[in-house]
Amino acid sequence: MELAPTVRRLDQLSSIGSDPTGGLTRLLYSDEWLTAQKYVQEEMAAMGMTTKFDGVGNLFGRIEGKDLPNETVMTGSHIDTVVNGGNLDGQFGVLASLTAVEYLKEKYGQPQRSLEVISMAEEEGSRFPTVFWGSKNFVGIADNEEVKDIKDGQGKGFVDEMRRQGFDFQEQTRRDDIVAFVEEHIEQGSILETEGDQIGVVTSIAGQRRYNITLKGQANHAGTTPMSYRHDAVYGMAKIVTLALERAHEIGDPLVMTFGKVVPKPNTVNVVPGEVLFTMDCRHTDPDFLIEFSTQVEEMMKEVAQDMGLGIEIDRWMDEAPVPMSEKVYQTIENCAKSGGYKYRVMHSGAGHYSQIIAPVYPTAMIFVPSIGGISHNPAEETNFEDLVNGVQLLADTLYELAVANCQTKCNGLSKNTSYGVS
Amino acid sequence: MELAPTVRRLDQLSSIGSDPTGGLTRLLYSDEWLTAQKYVQEEMAAMGMTTKFDGVGNLFGRIEGKDLPNETVMTGSHIDTVVNGGNLDGQFGVLASLTAVEYLKEKYGQPQRSLEVISMAEEEGSRFPTVFWGSKNFVGIADNEEVKDIKDGQGKGFVDEMRRQGFDFQEQTRRDDIVAFVEEHIEQGSILETEGDQIGVVTSIAGQRRYNITLKGQANHAGTTPMSYRHDAVYGMAKIVTLALERAHEIGDPLVMTFGKVVPKPNTVNVVPGEVLFTMDCRHTDPDFLIEFSTQVEEMMKEVAQDMGLGIEIDRWMDEAPVPMSEKVYQTIENCAKSGGYKYRVMHSGAGHYSQIIAPVYPTAMIFVPSIGGISHNPAEETNFEDLVNGVQLLADTLYELAVANCQTKCNGLSKNTSYGVS
Repeated sequence: MELAPTVRRLDQLSSIGSDPTGGLTRLLYSDEWLTAQKYVQEEMAAMGMTTKFDGVGNLFGRIEGKDLPNETVMTGSHIDTVVNGGNLDGQFGVLASLTAVEYLKEKYGQPQRSLEVISMAEEEGSRFPTVFWGSKNFVGIADNEEVKDIKDGQGKGFVDEMRRQGFDFQEQTRRDDIVAFVEEHIEQGSILETEGDQIGVVTSIAGQRRYNITLKGQANHAGTTPMSYRHDAVYGMAKIVTLALERAHEIGDPLVMTFGKVVPKPNTVNVVPGEVLFTMDCRHTDPDFLIEFSTQVEEMMKEVAQDMGLGIEIDRWMDEAPVPMSEKVYQTIENCAKSGGYKYRVMHSGAGHYSQIIAPVYPTAMIFVPSIGGISHNPAEETNFEDLVNGVQLLADTLYELAVANCQTKCNGLSKNTSYGVS
Repeated sequence: MELAPTVRRLDQLSSIGSDPTGGLTRLLYSDEWLTAQKYVQEEMAAMGMTTKFDGVGNLFGRIEGKDLPNETVMTGSHIDTVVNGGNLDGQFGVLASLTAVEYLKEKYGQPQRSLEVISMAEEEGSRFPTVFWGSKNFVGIADNEEVKDIKDGQGKGFVDEMRRQGFDFQEQTRRDDIVAFVEEHIEQGSILETEGDQIGVVTSIAGQRRYNITLKGQANHAGTTPMSYRHDAVYGMAKIVTLALERAHEIGDPLVMTFGKVVPKPNTVNVVPGEVLFTMDCRHTDPDFLIEFSTQVEEMMKEVAQDMGLGIEIDRWMDEAPVPMSEKVYQTIENCAKSGGYKYRVMHSGAGHYSQIIAPVYPTAMIFVPSIGGISHNPAEETNFEDLVNGVQLLADTLYELAVANCQTKCNGLSKNTSYGVS
């Protein structure tokens, strides 16, 4: 495969929204964001795709299938970034899709099924307090009410910014031609690198529950308050974190549990902390297990608080169920990885991706390439060039199986009739 | 005893530096601070004391003794406050001293020994990064080098501000006439209130060690990093805090241990914390125990860090030995409390006081009055009026014993010859 086009596109796209630290910032509906989408549109057009924006700014490039034009195999990722992000998260998937489709087109001509690349408007949720705006519009489940009054950190309104770039709310409809969807993405973790694997075949996206927990005791002078008088909120937090993480370590994969934020009050050396806010992030691929385990931890937290004479408030502000990927699609990926001779790993994604919005509607799976040191959302985000090449080749091979090979009628077991719901 | 003068003085002094929240802010060398010292000076003069500022702004009011004029019994507290403090911490001791001396003078005329009230320039360390500037100058151990370049939060230099108010560095000398020193203060804890006591007779000031501890692990994505890959700094902190406080609770009085400040990095819900800074404050009245216990905790912290693959830095930035009070002085206080029929408690001070600087030089002890709810350094700082009255009366009775009663020659076992060193 000719990789020069991907390298050129990665360099060019990485210059749009770049800053002096080497980071990349392309927030939804910013000028950089629109410039990037238009760049991708030009690249699509240059390779002979018909291009189209939907109402909210998702970009599509299409090559009509010659045998089954009304059955579309779609691939792509998102064009937006976090603030000061790296140059692979999202855009590598978009560019890998372009190169893979270009490769198939040059090698095999017009595909049997239609092939489409999507450059999704938004996935990161890093400008406005909303997330998956692009993918939710794509599958027709966006809630316009939810975004109509939200603003970014500078006080700019979501709707004003959307309209300033020429987009607007759209009717929530759903296409019925999509038979498979593949998103390629960097792993954003270090499992592939650590285990020496080149490819991750993603079979599910973990569910996650996030909490704010507040323990309330009594602030007291650190010198004049005997131990037996104290209601020390930090002591309560420490016991809870210790007990929960000991258990989480015992259980292990695919459970992960994180207490990332801790804010005591008044947070000073010589005052017994009267209050502490801390967060818990708990993820698992099994919906029942996720609920059962996190509920056990909630109960444990209440017991510790009661034993220590502390008040407790537990606010579960995120509750996303695990999303299984389509077995037909990920088996196609796995078969291609096997025949390609790659060292691959069947794995879940601990991070969220817009594919979790697509998967319940269209047969969807993801391909991961390794992240060096597991670093992402950071200018230091990097993947070995060879791994990027493998990722693009595997995506092309997968799209070949889905859209080209033996597709005179209903190839690969895919068809419009079986393409709905979680498969 | 006539309490009206104390009430009037407390009202008047509380108006200097007051803010709309009811709080009091009189920082060293501020205009409010100087106004307050001048107010106290006028009150001293009005009751017939000769008054004098030393070079750095400590204020003295003196009544010469008729029989032993060269043996001085001194009492007083500090005039400065924390930011938005209450109206008892420090100034109650100054005003109680004025009223007690006034009472003795009116009832008994000129005392046998000289009686002096000190309004100490600084104790709180709340404006500049230095503490005990007033008392260290008083006993001749101030280090001018230490303060010459320091600034307050607004960038104003210590020396500039000192000179602006008419003060300057002074020669570090020590008076040899002081045979006893009594500081009256609010407890700043809730032991007296909880135990139903009216008076605390303070026999020592706890030593304290303060630490900054930094645990260094590795920041990672909360979703994509398996538990077995993690080096979670908050987990390490939680284990350390739990182990240390469990042990501190087992040991109990007079040990206290506090982890008041916790600052993880990056302190966000979905990142495994790569680093955490936290503080430890450990106090005890026995110097050997304080060292032994805190050293054991240091060792435990290192073991936990090693077990968890975390780096650790332990910075013990404060190490103050416990300071015993003078047995002769606190026994005089206790005898007076007993004959006065007060419910009193012999106790240590868990909080620091400038008396810990005086005590190694002159025979010193403290009297505590209860703090409602143990609250101090807060506008809500309060003591029942009856407890304030008792405190002033007991101080007067104690000063009577030290400076008036049976003092024809060397009364009460006190004399200049035995007044040095820790007694």
